[in-house]
Amino acid sequence: MEMLSCHLNRDTDIPLYEQLYKYIKKEIIEGRLSFESKLPSKRKLADFLHISQNTVEAAYDQLIAEGYLESLPRKGYFVLASEDLEYVQPVDAKKNPKFEQQEENYSSIKYNFHPSWVDTENFPFEQWRKYAKNTIDKQNHSLLLLGDAQGEIKLREEISQYLYHARGLQCSPEEIIIGAGIEILLQQLLLLFKTDTVYGVEDPGYHLILRMLKSYPNEVYPLEVDEEGIQVESIENTNPNVVYVTPSHHFPYGTVLSVNRRTQLLNWATAEANRYIIEDDYDSEFRYSGKSIPPLKSMDQQEKVIYLGSFSKSLIPSLRISYMVLPKSLLERYRDELSFYHSSVSRIDQHILARFMREGDFERHLNRMRKIYRRKLEKIIELLKPYEDTVSVVGERSGLHIVLAVKNGMSESELVQRAAEAAVKVYPFSAYSMGKGDESPPKIVLGFAGITEEKLKIATETLLTTWER
Amino acid sequence: MEMLSCHLNRDTDIPLYEQLYKYIKKEIIEGRLSFESKLPSKRKLADFLHISQNTVEAAYDQLIAEGYLESLPRKGYFVLASEDLEYVQPVDAKKNPKFEQQEENYSSIKYNFHPSWVDTENFPFEQWRKYAKNTIDKQNHSLLLLGDAQGEIKLREEISQYLYHARGLQCSPEEIIIGAGIEILLQQLLLLFKTDTVYGVEDPGYHLILRMLKSYPNEVYPLEVDEEGIQVESIENTNPNVVYVTPSHHFPYGTVLSVNRRTQLLNWATAEANRYIIEDDYDSEFRYSGKSIPPLKSMDQQEKVIYLGSFSKSLIPSLRISYMVLPKSLLERYRDELSFYHSSVSRIDQHILARFMREGDFERHLNRMRKIYRRKLEKIIELLKPYEDTVSVVGERSGLHIVLAVKNGMSESELVQRAAEAAVKVYPFSAYSMGKGDESPPKIVLGFAGITEEKLKIATETLLTTWER
Repeated sequence: MEMLSCHLNRDTDIPLYEQLYKYIKKEIIEGRLSFESKLPSKRKLADFLHISQNTVEAAYDQLIAEGYLESLPRKGYFVLASEDLEYVQPVDAKKNPKFEQQEENYSSIKYNFHPSWVDTENFPFEQWRKYAKNTIDKQNHSLLLLGDAQGEIKLREEISQYLYHARGLQCSPEEIIIGAGIEILLQQLLLLFKTDTVYGVEDPGYHLILRMLKSYPNEVYPLEVDEEGIQVESIENTNPNVVYVTPSHHFPYGTVLSVNRRTQLLNWATAEANRYIIEDDYDSEFRYSGKSIPPLKSMDQQEKVIYLGSFSKSLIPSLRISYMVLPKSLLERYRDELSFYHSSVSRIDQHILARFMREGDFERHLNRMRKIYRRKLEKIIELLKPYEDTVSVVGERSGLHIVLAVKNGMSESELVQRAAEAAVKVYPFSAYSMGKGDESPPKIVLGFAGITEEKLKIATETLLTTWER
Repeated sequence: MEMLSCHLNRDTDIPLYEQLYKYIKKEIIEGRLSFESKLPSKRKLADFLHISQNTVEAAYDQLIAEGYLESLPRKGYFVLASEDLEYVQPVDAKKNPKFEQQEENYSSIKYNFHPSWVDTENFPFEQWRKYAKNTIDKQNHSLLLLGDAQGEIKLREEISQYLYHARGLQCSPEEIIIGAGIEILLQQLLLLFKTDTVYGVEDPGYHLILRMLKSYPNEVYPLEVDEEGIQVESIENTNPNVVYVTPSHHFPYGTVLSVNRRTQLLNWATAEANRYIIEDDYDSEFRYSGKSIPPLKSMDQQEKVIYLGSFSKSLIPSLRISYMVLPKSLLERYRDELSFYHSSVSRIDQHILARFMREGDFERHLNRMRKIYRRKLEKIIELLKPYEDTVSVVGERSGLHIVLAVKNGMSESELVQRAAEAAVKVYPFSAYSMGKGDESPPKIVLGFAGITEEKLKIATETLLTTWER
């Protein structure tokens, strides 16, 4: 991050903030401050230029209002791309979604359709607190020491039971590894694959995984997705070793991978050693119509599928408990090579969750949330009806988000911007793809789980009216 | 893992278990079952050979008693090295310490001097439970959503305060990143370094880090350690980019890195860009005499030191809360490249800990534990006095473990084995080195924190008497 060497003329009538604003704008337009550059903090720039922080704030605010800068909580000020600007280097606006995580800082946003948020008001605090109280007890002092590297056997047993009853997936607790989030589990998994392993990820797809794999030196190929799900020819054309898929509910399209494609995918993996499929079964708990779809892994006779599950959507994201079910060959290698890693999840939390599941509270919670989420989804669909000429739902109507295709003449960034001006935050579809170019018509991802039922009507109506030209 | 194709003769007088035992023993001695090979589970072998599990158990037990096999809870049976055996391939006994983590399964061990264990009986359960109850409350429902990628600001503020008051280290909460264990933080840190980064680790040193770095494709060099600590010439000779050190209390020697060496180390790091020092300040809370030694990072004017701290020793290992303090240059890169990773620690746990620290409970706990651990250390030192001709303490007398040099004619593995026969588990020093060859005299690492004060006398006396020839 460079300091801005702006020369301020205190002798003119032009206010200092305006001079600073013009200076920075010029630096951006003429390419000397490139897209995503971080600007100095207000305090540092004020110190450097011997002006007040208010002056810097006024300049920054103006630039934000005009779309040259964006302010990210706890990160700072960054140069934003804008279609009017000419850059020295090509701008990859999709490279860095920068989704804010801190809900306390959304003071300018009233309604946030964040795709990762869940309904927090209906979490069974009393139950969880009761089990926490019982677990945090002197008689359980052995829980303070490190436990099994794969995670507590009691929790793995509950997960094994759950997977069998709820997902039709048979696996033993021995094949399950618990970790503090999908990213943590994936990082371990990556160590089991050869260093020159080539990865394939759905594109559009789960951007967190995309970004994570790209922070490694391995090659990562985008794999085409259509209305049946991932295109297996795309895999055959790019020839990765390991593919990352969301077959139960494609993220973000929502597509369920067809039986044909599942068979093709498994055949592809079986054709060579060292080929694996990572199946991310996020939010499979929330289907509102039709039968639950068994995971790809339940069709896997050749031990090619690594199954990833998480309590982030079904329970709470901040609990940080996820799990993977390894095929036997990888389990052996995990135990030989990686079991010196201690489990990344607090044993106390694992026991609380195991108890919560054993007492039936998890099942009750899921049933309750399924009803609530279905109501929210139905509400949105109903509110969308009057706008069906311009706004249509793309893909499946399940899970905790939907994708809207908006044909009102606005571009994707205009849709996001216009919503923001009405204090509504929505998420651009392009953030989930590797930069194939804009969708036509533009698409928006709408997470509805995190908005309360009471606010859903006004949030959705505000959004839809603001999109009317 | 291969199945054992033992031909059993049901027509002889020789019991089946004895035939199996002899067969396996022969396979091991003649090198067809190599060191660390995994044997089939009792059930699988019994099924395969059409014999009872009891028969397999009898054979396995005999081989364990004789030192040919070891049984690891939830992992299985493995071939152990033994000096009497000739192997086709050279055996690297130090490659795989295989320290058991599950204290519930130590039924054959009465006294476990595990170096990572802490005193669990004195943990303030009531306080922790009280804060847990208060935190797990509907009014805190926003804690259910994902928070700041670096961890909760409230906890980072407490850590910043603690580091300043207890360690004399000045850093802002902004420079702190919280993670579910040192391994998790290191994995992220490794992504910030170039892919061809060469690492240097103290040898002997913290084996977990050693093993972790070796699971990556990067080169890892052992760095010599003497009575002043890490030898900086060793660094200059091997030319790594990043070194991992424990300057406050070398693991396992206990040495405090001298001021001279600290200066040399910092000068080395400053001499080139892309050189960094990772300072692991584990268990620095537990010095029983003399002034507390400020961390290396407090001398670091050039932003070269990454400081790692953890609550594993000072509080509880299974809580899985550790932190790193990044130099500004790396913090910038972390925020640019890695902040899409969600914090790996449950927000609820972070808030409980922050509250625990804010209310002064952490400080009280540390003071209490310091007294308890000092008493345990003094007890052991006193019990060792009559044996001082053969058993001496090597290195510092601080932290939660000591190193004993034992001059009774036994080899390191004999010392471990003899202790095990007396139901005492001790840890071979060679497990912490990269295979430089046996220490002379052999050394044993003794963690005393995890043994109760009541049992410490009998545990230590049992150990010392069993080592008398």
